[in-house]
Amino acid sequence: MKQILVLTFTLLTANIAHSQLSEDSIRIKQMADNVLSNNYCYENLRVLCKKVGARLSGSTQAAKAVQLTYNMFTQIPGLDSVYLQECMVPQWVRGTKEEVFVTTSTNKKINIQATSLGNTEGTKGKLLSAPIVMVNNYAMLDSLGEKGIKGNIVFYNYPMNPTYISTGKAYGETGTYRVQGASKAAKYGAIATLVRSLASNVDSHPHTGVCVYNDSFPKIPALAISTLDAEKLQAMITKQQIKTINIKTNCTLKAPVKSYNVIGEIRGTALPNEYITVGGHLDSWDLAEGAHDDGTGCMQSMEVLRVFKTIGIMPKRTIRAVLFMNEENGGGGANAYFENAKTRNEKHFFALESDAGGFTPRAFGITGTKEALVKMQSFIPLLYPYGVYEIRMGGGGADINKLKALGATLCGLSPDGQRYFSLHHAENDVFEAVDKRELELGAINMAALIYLVDKYGLL
Amino acid sequence: MKQILVLTFTLLTANIAHSQLSEDSIRIKQMADNVLSNNYCYENLRVLCKKVGARLSGSTQAAKAVQLTYNMFTQIPGLDSVYLQECMVPQWVRGTKEEVFVTTSTNKKINIQATSLGNTEGTKGKLLSAPIVMVNNYAMLDSLGEKGIKGNIVFYNYPMNPTYISTGKAYGETGTYRVQGASKAAKYGAIATLVRSLASNVDSHPHTGVCVYNDSFPKIPALAISTLDAEKLQAMITKQQIKTINIKTNCTLKAPVKSYNVIGEIRGTALPNEYITVGGHLDSWDLAEGAHDDGTGCMQSMEVLRVFKTIGIMPKRTIRAVLFMNEENGGGGANAYFENAKTRNEKHFFALESDAGGFTPRAFGITGTKEALVKMQSFIPLLYPYGVYEIRMGGGGADINKLKALGATLCGLSPDGQRYFSLHHAENDVFEAVDKRELELGAINMAALIYLVDKYGLL
Repeated sequence: MKQILVLTFTLLTANIAHSQLSEDSIRIKQMADNVLSNNYCYENLRVLCKKVGARLSGSTQAAKAVQLTYNMFTQIPGLDSVYLQECMVPQWVRGTKEEVFVTTSTNKKINIQATSLGNTEGTKGKLLSAPIVMVNNYAMLDSLGEKGIKGNIVFYNYPMNPTYISTGKAYGETGTYRVQGASKAAKYGAIATLVRSLASNVDSHPHTGVCVYNDSFPKIPALAISTLDAEKLQAMITKQQIKTINIKTNCTLKAPVKSYNVIGEIRGTALPNEYITVGGHLDSWDLAEGAHDDGTGCMQSMEVLRVFKTIGIMPKRTIRAVLFMNEENGGGGANAYFENAKTRNEKHFFALESDAGGFTPRAFGITGTKEALVKMQSFIPLLYPYGVYEIRMGGGGADINKLKALGATLCGLSPDGQRYFSLHHAENDVFEAVDKRELELGAINMAALIYLVDKYGLL
Repeated sequence: MKQILVLTFTLLTANIAHSQLSEDSIRIKQMADNVLSNNYCYENLRVLCKKVGARLSGSTQAAKAVQLTYNMFTQIPGLDSVYLQECMVPQWVRGTKEEVFVTTSTNKKINIQATSLGNTEGTKGKLLSAPIVMVNNYAMLDSLGEKGIKGNIVFYNYPMNPTYISTGKAYGETGTYRVQGASKAAKYGAIATLVRSLASNVDSHPHTGVCVYNDSFPKIPALAISTLDAEKLQAMITKQQIKTINIKTNCTLKAPVKSYNVIGEIRGTALPNEYITVGGHLDSWDLAEGAHDDGTGCMQSMEVLRVFKTIGIMPKRTIRAVLFMNEENGGGGANAYFENAKTRNEKHFFALESDAGGFTPRAFGITGTKEALVKMQSFIPLLYPYGVYEIRMGGGGADINKLKALGATLCGLSPDGQRYFSLHHAENDVFEAVDKRELELGAINMAALIYLVDKYGLL
């Protein structure tokens, strides 16, 4: 409760004069009207999703996405610069579709909807068969120890907590079983792991995502299964109906390859050597179109530049829209962007990332000083008509976080997250799941915030 | 801007003591945890949408929906009363699917996706053919007058304004062309009207909705066409490519028939003769499953009773969940509820309607005294964690508005409305378009608000 009261008090002490508020609200309405009357952002997303589709780092499709979005940038009239920035990315290859099935105690075969986790090694096309051990958490894994785990396939069945209002919080809590679960089980001699998909709903889509091996232990195959199948497995295990789980996969991690961030710039009028970055990530998992994750963030970032140029906003600082490569399974693009900036001794003032889905906007979260937070909260009355009513401490994004070291205040768009984890990293993350107006309202709030941060600074 | 500052100031002067805030926040969290951990609300919606589906007033399906939801109420343990309340409803029958096509100037036939408007008369199965006159608004219609309109089919091409952030505002502004357009055109001798669907997106689904004839003019056929076809027609008209529009429909309005509101009650402990109504409407249009409009409002209202009983909240006043019949094309259920209440001299304290879709909640709007508004705004800190951050003047709902005359403060749930008018009254308003968590968060805020209003009153 207290946080809310503090926040609202900040509104009352907003340190922008009323005449400025009025001028700014007119300018922001011009942006909003332009974005909402246009099909630019939504249509470009459709093209990315339908003409390229899935674009896993290092794939031919990712290379196509680089070329396509580079061309999109060049079609925004008046940008000062459009370029590709080289980066190295891992090349994880799924191979043929996973085959996973249960052999029941009565020798029936029951198929399981599964997906290999990103960056993992597969079974090299061999059928791996072993008994299943279900654990609800690491404490249970540890208590079973080598005696209970060795030679078995471990099934992590930890649902996202439905009572958290923030689905991101539930995702964060559950994520460790996908990211570290394989090695933690391998430590006790498990030969493979299945993890209940990190999803807030119950359906038949398995959700992939990155898995990080600990080099001290064998790199065992690790897969996610659909939440529906997780519930089925749980029921069968409880009734002791399972003889073995059988897994056949072909995925492998190959040597890194070259790829690119795609960047467009508007050069600042007064402080051209200070940078404001706005971005999303261009790569996606290979299962779907990567619409919400993160085609929307890319298109919103491009839209910020387009609407600035269209209605004639001339920022003091240089605004860069960056479509980062390889957020999902390596961060190669983020590293390259940071290293380039560091080498050139660039001063980074502010960085805004949209990578939480193209849903209706509610808030921004920041990583920065208390003064910056208070200053940004003074902008809320200007954003409020477009859906953002809260700016809170805590936020940023995987692709921009390193820029803190170069002086940037970090910021993340927080759209409504209730629907995100029903499609995140799964085959239903498609263009049709994005609402045009929700996408555009996100872009409007991003453009408005950058306009205000650039105009008024953060002190 | 000013409104926001006033609202936030209210938060600071919240007149609930902190200890109460704490006790209430615990109680509301119990409700939230229960709703979010349950499948009740969402599963019942699935059953309503998939086992009954469309349920136009007076139809066999509507009668099935009455029986089904009556049974659902009886399965909530501990309700004090479950009953049907008789009402009279019009029986509009669509007949065979509409046939609408363009005959081009080169005698080609181009089909148009169209739906008859509710309560209208059709062409009695005859093919009506006439030239088309496109008007952008009534001013244009009036300036054309009888000379330009007589014998023609009028096409109202007034898009919902995309720059309004409130889609409801855009719907309200555009609605007159669907509701009154037919008679206004008939006045000048038009033989039928087509209206661009009241939709905020561009797709191939025509959206129906009620049309109200003015008895002074002929009751001409009136249809809505999809927004995609509206854009196609506009382009063809501009290029003078259309010879005639051709319409064949069979709809007609029959004599009223008997139907029912479905009601469940928890009897109040201290003030049993004061009523709090919470409701949605059970009827829907015949094109789709009526999921968001308004299966969600019905299920949320039932959920309020279920969660009250489950966690042991004993309200002072009698809480009635009412599934109103016939909101869409007559208001027969609302009339019956009001007349019954008036006859019995019931004191109605508060009435809350959910009929704006089962989307993620943002606000409540009220019709009541300024004191009631201030009191309700003092509850915002308790609702804020669940998504409601604003309570504003202006709100209620078609089914409860009359209760104002019996003393009730009226209130409407305002969920995020960006997606609503892409599916409202169209065949894509199906169960799959509803997100479980968004639906449940609406129910949680409704339950919490009723709990607080009942506990603290409105003065």
